[in-house]
Formats: sequence, C-alpha cells, structure tokens
Amino acid sequence: MKAVVVNCTLKASPEPSNTEQLARVVTSALEERGVTVTWFRLADLAIDHGVETSLSDQDQWPTVHDAIVAADILVIATPTWVGRPASYAQQALERLDAMISETRDDGQPLALGKVAGVVVTGNEDGAHHVISEISGGLVDIGFTIPGQAWTYWNRGPGPGPQYRETEEGHDWSRETGRTMADRLVEVSRALATAGV
Amino acid sequence: MKAVVVNCTLKASPEPSNTEQLARVVTSALEERGVTVTWFRLADLAIDHGVETSLSDQDQWPTVHDAIVAADILVIATPTWVGRPASYAQQALERLDAMISETRDDGQPLALGKVAGVVVTGNEDGAHHVISEISGGLVDIGFTIPGQAWTYWNRGPGPGPQYRETEEGHDWSRETGRTMADRLVEVSRALATAGV
Amino acid sequence: MKAVVVNCTLKASPEPSNTEQLARVVTSALEERGVTVTWFRLADLAIDHGVETSLSDQDQWPTVHDAIVAADILVIATPTWVGRPASYAQQALERLDAMISETRDDGQPLALGKVAGVVVTGNEDGAHHVISEISGGLVDIGFTIPGQAWTYWNRGPGPGPQYRETEEGHDWSRETGRTMADRLVEVSRALATAGV
Amino acid sequence: MKAVVVNCTLKASPEPSNTEQLARVVTSALEERGVTVTWFRLADLAIDHGVETSLSDQDQWPTVHDAIVAADILVIATPTWVGRPASYAQQALERLDAMISETRDDGQPLALGKVAGVVVTGNEDGAHHVISEISGGLVDIGFTIPGQAWTYWNRGPGPGPQYRETEEGHDWSRETGRTMADRLVEVSRALATAGV
Repeated sequence: MKAVVVNCTLKASPEPSNTEQLARVVTSALEERGVTVTWFRLADLAIDHGVETSLSDQDQWPTVHDAIVAADILVIATPTWVGRPASYAQQALERLDAMISETRDDGQPLALGKVAGVVVTGNEDGAHHVISEISGGLVDIGFTIPGQAWTYWNRGPGPGPQYRETEEGHDWSRETGRTMADRLVEVSRALATAGV
Repeated sequence: MKAVVVNCTLKASPEPSNTEQLARVVTSALEERGVTVTWFRLADLAIDHGVETSLSDQDQWPTVHDAIVAADILVIATPTWVGRPASYAQQALERLDAMISETRDDGQPLALGKVAGVVVTGNEDGAHHVISEISGGLVDIGFTIPGQAWTYWNRGPGPGPQYRETEEGHDWSRETGRTMADRLVEVSRALATAGV
Repeated sequence: MKAVVVNCTLKASPEPSNTEQLARVVTSALEERGVTVTWFRLADLAIDHGVETSLSDQDQWPTVHDAIVAADILVIATPTWVGRPASYAQQALERLDAMISETRDDGQPLALGKVAGVVVTGNEDGAHHVISEISGGLVDIGFTIPGQAWTYWNRGPGPGPQYRETEEGHDWSRETGRTMADRLVEVSRALATAGV
Repeated sequence: MKAVVVNCTLKASPEPSNTEQLARVVTSALEERGVTVTWFRLADLAIDHGVETSLSDQDQWPTVHDAIVAADILVIATPTWVGRPASYAQQALERLDAMISETRDDGQPLALGKVAGVVVTGNEDGAHHVISEISGGLVDIGFTIPGQAWTYWNRGPGPGPQYRETEEGHDWSRETGRTMADRLVEVSRALATAGV
C-alpha cells in the first residue's frame, strides 16, 4: 500500500515545518502498518497555477500528480492561515481538479478507490473548517474520506505558540493521528479487496 | 442493506418538498440496487435542541437515531438557505454528535462502517458549501464519505425558480444522483465485507 | 443607540449559558458607551422554522424581528457545535432572510445602516468559521460588519473545558470583546451621521 | 477616494479574465462616483508565499500592499475553483495578515477605516461561500464590509459556460455590482467623515 503526503506549509526547506512534524505522527503509524510513504513539500517545488495536470516545462506538479495516481492514500497536511487552508492547499485542489476527467481503464475517475485524510496545524483556531474545506474538495474529485481520517493541533483563543514550541495538547493530536492512520488503512484495504 | 434519508426541508407535510423530490432520484437508484430506504422529514417531527441522543419525553430524535444506528447508509438531504445548510441539518449534526461517544461491541464508534452522502437543492447558489459542511461534520462523527457521494440542483445567479418549477438542469442532477447511489452502495458493501 | 443580542445557545434558561457570559463582556462595553441592550435567548422562545417574518400565532420571532428593526446594532452570540454555528444561529439567519425584501421609507433594505458582530464560544475549535458563516450571511441580508467586530473563546486541540469552567484565555477574549464594542459603536455612529 | 482591485484569476495576461470582466461593472460604477481605481492581477506578478509584507527582492507584493494602504476601498475579485476562492485569493489574505500588526499614527490597525467587497465568477456553484470566506478573512484583518458589498455570477447545476461565453444572468450580476459600488462608496465616505 502506498501513501502520498502533500505538505502545504508556506515555508521552504530547510525551515522546520510544524505541519510536517504533526503529519509524521500519521506517516509513522502508516509505516508501522506496512504503507510506503512519499512526501512532497509544495514550497520546495515549482507549482504552476491552473486547473490542468501539466502547465509548463518548469511545472513540477506532474511528479506530484503521478505519485498520487500510483498511491492508495492521500494525506493533505496544511497550516491554518486567517482561519483557512494555506494557499498551497487550494492550489493542490485546483491541480487535482483535472483528475475529475482523467479515467481508469474501466472508465471510472482516477480518484475512485483512493482514500484521503487531512492534517492541520495552526497557531490559532480554524482546524475543523480546514478539514471540511479540503475533505469537501477531495470528495468532489472522487476520493473517499474515511470517518475520523483527520488530526489537528492548535491552541487558543487568539494567536499562540506553534506546534514545535510547546508540548501542550500533543497527546490528543498524536492519538487522533494514529486513529487517522488506522482509518485510512482499513478503508483503503476494504476498497481494494472489493475492487472499487 | 439499509439506508436512512433525513430530509431537512423547513416545510412540514403536506407541503411539497423540492429537496425530497431530488432525493427520490437517489433513493430510487438505491432501491434498484436492493437497498431498503427509511425516510424522516424533521419538520414533521418534534426534535429537541441539544447534543444528546435523548432529551425529553416528547423528543422524537431517538427514533431517527435508532434507524441510523440500524442502517448502513445515511443520506442528509437539505435545502440551501442564505448559502448554508438548513437549520434542521445543523440540528441533525448536533444530535448525531452524541454518537461519537456511543460504541459498538468492539469498542469502536457507532458510525464506523457506515457511509453517508448529501443531497442539496436551492433557489440560489450554495450547494458545494452545503456538501462540505455536512460531509465535514459527518466525517468528524465517524461516517465515511465515498467519492462523489452527493448531488445538487440550483440555478443562478441570484434567486431563481425552485426544483419543482423548472426542468432545467434536472438531467445533470439526476445523473449525479445515480452516481451517488452507486458510490454509497459499493463503498458500504466494501466496508461490510472487510468488517470495518 | 440601541443594540440587540440574539443568544443561540442550545440550552434554555435557567441553565447557565457560556455564550451569554462572553457576550456580557461586549454588552457591558456597549452600555458604558451609552448603548441600550436588549437580549433574546432563542432557546427560551417558540421560534418557527421558515424564511418569513411571521409564520404562526405561537411564533415569537416577530418580537425579535421588531427589536432588530428598531436597533442600530445586532450581535449574534453562538456556541460552536461540530465546528459550526449552532442550529439556532442558522434559524435566525433564515428568519432574517425575509428582511431582504422589507424596505425603509426610502426604498432601501431595512438592514442598511445597521451594523452587526459575532460572539463565539466553544469547547473545541471552530470560531473563525462560525464568525465567517454568520458575517457572510448578515452581509448578504444588508448588515455592515465593522472590522474586528467579533470575539471568541475556546481551548484546543480536541474537546476541552467550557468558558465558565476555566479562566484560561479569558483576558484575550475580553480585550477582543471590548474592541468589538468600540468598532460597533464607531461604525454605527458614522453610518447614522452620514444618513446611510 | 481611491480603490484597489486585486484580481485573483489563475490566468496570466493576455488571456482574457472572466473575473475582470464582471469586476469592471463594479469599477465603472465606482469611477462614475469619482473613485480612482488601481488594478492588480496577481497572476501577472511575482508574489511570494508567506505572512509578511516583504519577503524577498523579487517579491512584488509590497507594491500591492502600498496601494491598499493608500486606498479607501479594496475589491477582491476571484474565480471559484472546486467551490472555493482561487489560491491567489488565499495568498492575498495571507499577505494581508501582516497588516494586523501594522498601525496608523493613532495606534489603530492600518485596515480600520477601509471598506472591502468581493466579486466572484465561476463556471459552477460556490459564490456565497467564496464571499463569506473572503469577507470573514478581511473582517479579521480590520476591513469593514458594507452590507451587499458583493456581486457574483455562475450558472448551474454542474459545470457550465464561463461569464464571457453567455449573456444569461448578466443583468442580475450587473445590477448587484452597481449596488455593491454604492455601498462601498457610501460606507467609505461615512467612515472618512467620522474619522474612523
């Protein structure tokens, strides 16, 4: 079983990513369950704006696209900015939009049979909305969202520390992250067995 | 296989419900696939406000709750008001919230293994948002949302006719509704076979 | 200057309302600035479902409606349930929807010239979204939303204490609440002076 | 009085922008009322990702930022993708986030006293949500949103023509756009007179 993580932090490497750190809880749990994980950090890549799979010679989205097509599980990991998904997350949805009209050999959309989940960090409130926005977009495109296939972390009210700056609340986010990995694996396996 | 439809129209019977009419496209397709369908129209019932399963002697939510617990598939059907899900849809999410802490014999949340989808009508724009809001809430509670498990109808821009007042766009909504039924049945069957 | 607060807690009196407690920070600051405040707690009233101003003999919305029409400032105060505005808040938007077609003597919508803000509490994440949902709906109907006309309180991640159960974070929410009162009063006064 | 339009189409010049075309209805009405309008099309500029005003030597956001600081009115114009604001709109909110801590001589946030509105086009449903998302973000940052300060255009249900490809519904969107210009000008003038 293969998973792809798309990290939508606004910060390029080598700056540390809070979002990556929480997503690693999920990917460690996935790896313990035998899943191979491939990471993409959009801020490190040249990603064109648009709604097609390939847009220019420099555009590196096709590599991300092909990895998602080859995978069973997609994890979108994003920070929260102004209470909403990071701009890279919306850019990923826009590029994934092209998959609605890409079909498998059986004529079904490419995303059918794939499952997806969401990881959210923030230094302020917004995670439930971010999860709904991204899950709603992915369902539109054809991904299946298993129940409880999300985890999040923030502190409130008002601006506060970042994930890496405190240990508060990490236990809850980690436990929820491990549950997320369970749900992704069990629903992915069920769909594969049933030939969905 | 059993399905429950919760119709969140603001209008009590016998007023005709546009939302019911579009949802019948989905339930007809479910019935063709051997699914037994039970309907609830919240405007015809006495539903208390709150976040527990049983709230008073007059409260009729427990009947809806028990039918959902016994079902494999949940369909939330709602009109769009001020661009958002009808108040009855949010009321249903609030009551379903109690299911997070209700567990099966194996200790897992009651909603695991169940799938859900959304039907939306409107005399104005808003359906994508309504689908995301309800899907996001249901994923929180533990339901799995199959890819493309939604259909909607509206006309725009600005206020326009209701579903029953025109034939425009019905073909698209019906085809999408039949796809929704396919997705609900195939993912529900996959989860049941896998014992999720 | 007159203000109306619509408290959307799901709990009827005499149960204490966390949302009321945070909203009192805002109304105290409004009263210090000479504003007369009228409160409505929807859970204590019989509010019909629908999108017209008057729906039945028992319906108590017309009293709320008339107070809003007579007021300069509207405050919607709501808890967060499943990451979204309480069902009473959506019910209030649905009833306010009728005001789009109610006009003043000069032919303009009744809500023009009125300002509005949002108070949110929660035992979990969701406030930014709740503020956007309600503000967006009110702008649709014709209310003006002054910058920073909101305050919120919650703790995260995951479920946590209620507002009345801890002092954590209250300072931030109170300061934000007093800023909200300033914004509501100064923009309301500016619109009145300009005859908007 | 000065206005800035930030066009968030994903397409760079010289490709025609549907969103620009609808926004021109609003800016023509603004110009008729004596407002000077400056346009930015983010797809034509090099805009860094991040939440500060200036991020690199190539970053062209500072020019946009300075024009917004000098203006009285901000119009965010965006297409709808996967039911949500275009990624450039979220990128603009992220960059504007820095304005929360930038203050005027009187110590108040830079956005206070400024008004903002939203123009939305789409080949599918989503405008109400896009308006709420952007309005909610701008209120967070300190902009005032006048009642009815929005217009939108789309056709549904399902994917359909683009704004430039049909005349259907244009009358409604144009009339709403002219109302938007009225609201922006009258509230901006009221705030200026009152010294907000």
